[in-house]
Amino acid sequence: MDNKSLILNNIGKWINLTEAEADHFTSLLKPVTAKRKELILEAGEICRYSYFVTSGCLRGYTIDANGFEHVLNFAAPNWWIADMYSLLSQRPGNTYIQALEPTSTLALSKDAQERLYREIPAFERFFRIITENSLVSFQQRLLDNLSLTAEERYQNFCKRYAGLTDSIPAKQVASYIGVTPEFLSKMKHKLLYKK
Amino acid sequence: MDNKSLILNNIGKWINLTEAEADHFTSLLKPVTAKRKELILEAGEICRYSYFVTSGCLRGYTIDANGFEHVLNFAAPNWWIADMYSLLSQRPGNTYIQALEPTSTLALSKDAQERLYREIPAFERFFRIITENSLVSFQQRLLDNLSLTAEERYQNFCKRYAGLTDSIPAKQVASYIGVTPEFLSKMKHKLLYKK
Repeated sequence: MDNKSLILNNIGKWINLTEAEADHFTSLLKPVTAKRKELILEAGEICRYSYFVTSGCLRGYTIDANGFEHVLNFAAPNWWIADMYSLLSQRPGNTYIQALEPTSTLALSKDAQERLYREIPAFERFFRIITENSLVSFQQRLLDNLSLTAEERYQNFCKRYAGLTDSIPAKQVASYIGVTPEFLSKMKHKLLYKK
Repeated sequence: MDNKSLILNNIGKWINLTEAEADHFTSLLKPVTAKRKELILEAGEICRYSYFVTSGCLRGYTIDANGFEHVLNFAAPNWWIADMYSLLSQRPGNTYIQALEPTSTLALSKDAQERLYREIPAFERFFRIITENSLVSFQQRLLDNLSLTAEERYQNFCKRYAGLTDSIPAKQVASYIGVTPEFLSKMKHKLLYKK
């Protein structure tokens, strides 16, 4: 499936577009690629795009005052990613978005997105629904962090990113669930042994 | 301001409704009140309503396997609250919503909300925007929990719930920021001393 078909398929799960609307929408997208480890957004910058991943994998993370990285989310093919705070407020954000492997995206600028809302109101519905899903996922993760053991958090990670768990480096998985890579490794052995 | 004016005012910040649309919308709302400490939603139930608070204060929380409560959010007048996972999936959730003081709300059922999207598409826009704001707030809180000190988390809590900090019991504030009430009390003294 080519990249435009992939994104139209993603959108088609939630809203119906006419052929003319689909053409107009895809004409607003800009292909953005990144090499392994390349940053497509840095903390301190204003996030001007929502990125739809067509191949590869991105991760969103932040660096705290002590220099520790904290992973916010991953985006595999068919996922959208942005620094939502910065995108919505158009103020500098505190999130980095980095490619974990060579990655291709279709980028929708904030301006194009606002234009879509005016020209094709069904996009209000599309972005409402994917934002709701994202909110549920973040609320769940917040609750996981507050109340689950590391082992349970790892199992929820595997459910959330099913099919991706082997392609995300262990170091990043450890950062996502909030343990050291060594602890994650021991835990995975224990879980294998349990099975 | 009466309750219907309050909710129309809240919605009017983001979308314009005709008088007929506003009347139709308010006809779909159901007044729901709760006494102090009363639960309007329990874990294991299906969340069927979004609640708009007109007076009082609600809190959303969960109880982990060890019996510890974890506060997800507070909703003061002019805020919406629901168990988003349960509301969207219509499956049993794991959130409790409780009144911290005598509280009045206007409740919009999931069915009425779906009907609104069909009949008055501007509501797609309204709920897209408030969901985006909620997502930013949860992402920020997740990052706060991962990377800030308890003192910084308390300061962010005070900013997020400005004007509410005195009406929320210290025990709930402590639970929200993830410290014991004793630690919160010492921290507040230290902060006062700093000023």
